[in-house]
Amino acid sequence: MSQSHRSPCPIACSLDLIGDRWTLLVIRDMMFFGKQRFEEFLESPEGISTNILANRLKSLEEMGLVEKQPYSNHSRRMNYQLTERGKSLRPVLKAIAVWGLKHIPETKIPDDEQSGV
Amino acid sequence: MSQSHRSPCPIACSLDLIGDRWTLLVIRDMMFFGKQRFEEFLESPEGISTNILANRLKSLEEMGLVEKQPYSNHSRRMNYQLTERGKSLRPVLKAIAVWGLKHIPETKIPDDEQSGV
Repeated sequence: MSQSHRSPCPIACSLDLIGDRWTLLVIRDMMFFGKQRFEEFLESPEGISTNILANRLKSLEEMGLVEKQPYSNHSRRMNYQLTERGKSLRPVLKAIAVWGLKHIPETKIPDDEQSGV
Repeated sequence: MSQSHRSPCPIACSLDLIGDRWTLLVIRDMMFFGKQRFEEFLESPEGISTNILANRLKSLEEMGLVEKQPYSNHSRRMNYQLTERGKSLRPVLKAIAVWGLKHIPETKIPDDEQSGV
């Protein structure tokens, strides 16, 4: 991983990695919805575009948060899964979800996500 | 506050408000360093520019996370302070800081921030 740190602050450095509107949503889809394939991420209600998704998956892999592997022995299609480092973002996602649920009207956790949070 | 939600997901909605590289750093400066004045935010080591800072302070005020008041009775300069809604982001910042400290090399909490986290 190569990166230029703005400061030694762990918050600033974390935001350099995951501080955008899309990265944590891809991680959310893996963590709470069990999504693994490119097409599955495209189906999320926020409507991520193919080029942004491809960019974020590549970055996540470079950051060591996600790893990909062939979908099957004879396929060039890939599965994406969280690494242990990626899974360790659960408390961050949880804190954000708790804050959003409390402070942003009309937010809710989908039924099939309940058990995961 | 007017906003277009990408979905009802509390994570997505929260990221629409605070999911960028700068917003949470301004909140960090208020929450953990007690900064209140425009000039103080400019002094932070990440080197936020005046136009980005002005933009983020305005957005934070519109979101109800920050409120401003005159620096003194006879001044047009402003103090910026977190509202209760803004202060409620503490668990989010804390989770991000904990993750960054553990997973990003060479990050550290400044001495004068220790007690605040």
